[in-house]
Amino acid sequence: MTHFTKRRGERTVTFTKPPAVLCASTVVGDMEEGGPLHGKFDVVLTDDTWGELSWEKAECKMFEHAVRLTLEKAHMDTDSLHCMLGGDLLNQLVSANYAARQLSVPFLGLYSACSTMSEALLIGAMLVDGGYLGNAMCVTSSHFSTAERQFRYPLEMGTTSPPTAQRTVTGTGAVLIGSERVAVHPSMLSGVHITGGTLGKVVDLGIKDMANMGAAMAPAAADTIVGHLKDMGRAVSDYDLIVTGDLGKFGSEMLQDLCLQQGVDLLNRHRDCGVLIYSEQQKLDCGGSGAGCSSTVLAAHLLPELEKGTYRRILFLATGALMSPGSSQQGESIPGIAHAAVLERMN
Amino acid sequence: MTHFTKRRGERTVTFTKPPAVLCASTVVGDMEEGGPLHGKFDVVLTDDTWGELSWEKAECKMFEHAVRLTLEKAHMDTDSLHCMLGGDLLNQLVSANYAARQLSVPFLGLYSACSTMSEALLIGAMLVDGGYLGNAMCVTSSHFSTAERQFRYPLEMGTTSPPTAQRTVTGTGAVLIGSERVAVHPSMLSGVHITGGTLGKVVDLGIKDMANMGAAMAPAAADTIVGHLKDMGRAVSDYDLIVTGDLGKFGSEMLQDLCLQQGVDLLNRHRDCGVLIYSEQQKLDCGGSGAGCSSTVLAAHLLPELEKGTYRRILFLATGALMSPGSSQQGESIPGIAHAAVLERMN
Repeated sequence: MTHFTKRRGERTVTFTKPPAVLCASTVVGDMEEGGPLHGKFDVVLTDDTWGELSWEKAECKMFEHAVRLTLEKAHMDTDSLHCMLGGDLLNQLVSANYAARQLSVPFLGLYSACSTMSEALLIGAMLVDGGYLGNAMCVTSSHFSTAERQFRYPLEMGTTSPPTAQRTVTGTGAVLIGSERVAVHPSMLSGVHITGGTLGKVVDLGIKDMANMGAAMAPAAADTIVGHLKDMGRAVSDYDLIVTGDLGKFGSEMLQDLCLQQGVDLLNRHRDCGVLIYSEQQKLDCGGSGAGCSSTVLAAHLLPELEKGTYRRILFLATGALMSPGSSQQGESIPGIAHAAVLERMN
Repeated sequence: MTHFTKRRGERTVTFTKPPAVLCASTVVGDMEEGGPLHGKFDVVLTDDTWGELSWEKAECKMFEHAVRLTLEKAHMDTDSLHCMLGGDLLNQLVSANYAARQLSVPFLGLYSACSTMSEALLIGAMLVDGGYLGNAMCVTSSHFSTAERQFRYPLEMGTTSPPTAQRTVTGTGAVLIGSERVAVHPSMLSGVHITGGTLGKVVDLGIKDMANMGAAMAPAAADTIVGHLKDMGRAVSDYDLIVTGDLGKFGSEMLQDLCLQQGVDLLNRHRDCGVLIYSEQQKLDCGGSGAGCSSTVLAAHLLPELEKGTYRRILFLATGALMSPGSSQQGESIPGIAHAAVLERMN
């Protein structure tokens, strides 16, 4: 663990005994399965209500199911889970809270919009490394139909989206982390650890277009990346990948520019989960978004690739647009935030 | 710090070098100043828009102001604040997020409804005790007029409230905690520490009445109190006070009964911030509620009384009703959650 005597403005932590990533699960919709990551998800819904009476209830079921599946992979029951951390995009975090009710586990509700997954990983890793929790389930979800209803227009209206729009991912990603001393079962990931992270700041360059989330989030992502590298005394080349959550195509270009302006060339190391999850053929504008975008790509793709050794060190920054219909109606711009976690293959 | 080898089902942490409560500030409305705690708040608004164009913008300003005032008391600037943790009741945590934008400090957004203050204290204390942060600003707010608009009816309708209703407190409470090695200034609190805490679970006994939040939260509060005492091997008499956030009069009675059913007699030690903040003469039904209820009563009343030595040890449980208008419209009941922090006068 780091010592508390940070230099002024520093916001990065590192772990001397990095918490291990134990296992992970995903539940996604058919659109996500239809993209480049097909075959990598644990559960694929063919009906996005999953037999429930509303999309919101379906999202809650996805949240609960991903957690149960992850526990199953770890041969654990809910009583041996020390804490669940996470959230979703719905008002009052209803998916997470109703899932937590069903699971009856200690729960820390978090909200930083689509940056919630890295916030959960970062807080979870500090609490595990500090010895307060033996294990922690970090989990976030989003659902295309619940998000459209809450943040944009009723789907029944059939509104078209502008070219900068992104599609909210229907998906839940759950990642169990823990002290390495926990027994490892064959189905569990091995060798992947969270070695540190950087706390995000809320950054706002004045974007007001609710159909251009990538542009609203890119400044926060740039701020965290530049801050992280500075705090760590590292270069972009020290990472195999720098992965943002859901900037999409347009936001990714903006990120490159914003980083360059601050003297950081992202080289060819930048990837975005929102770009990775859908293919060009799916014609989904600028890509995916949502709290479940980064968590499902992490759980289904990035973690397995880290385990295989394809990558050794990834800076994972889920990116959040703190978009609020109410604030937008009052003329406010959309601030962004990006928390970062360092994921490494060790040994 | 505690060791990670918890027994099954345990959810309590204790600190060997308990983080210190350094100072605190409050901003409240005139109704709160008109109650039994008058004269104890730092800033009292006479106009609940505070010169802003909307109640939401006013709440954001209150949030930011309480943080700045607390930093001022600590003779600190924003650059030396390691992290802000907290939230509010508004969708997408707009008060907290827009305040975090203005302050430009690392920010961890939390949401557990009106239990957010004890969630912030608990996470903040673990991160300070663990050495990840040198200091942390824990802060929550609520505002009568923004809450009514979002959760109930437009104020312009002039709806009357049933006897079980509580009034959302217009207030922000900010509490700065830190490693004790931080220099102490005369205006700062002394001797008050966070010595441990218990993670809350989401509990739901099926209450569906949105005007009876106390009943929705009481089961979660009982669950955390009973769990805490069991984990710690302590009795109610080991605490001078057990303080809940905003159960109100009716919820407080229910809490006593629920605890008794589980073999725990709260004796005369239970207090509720929602009951403490308004007087009978104010005729505000069952009392106060809201994320700012517990945080302002803590900052303006409980912490100073701990410092004076009136109390030596308090179990502080902000209590949250995870009420969602959307879920209620879909027939869901209202789950509750209560995180707990142990506050002690040491030396």
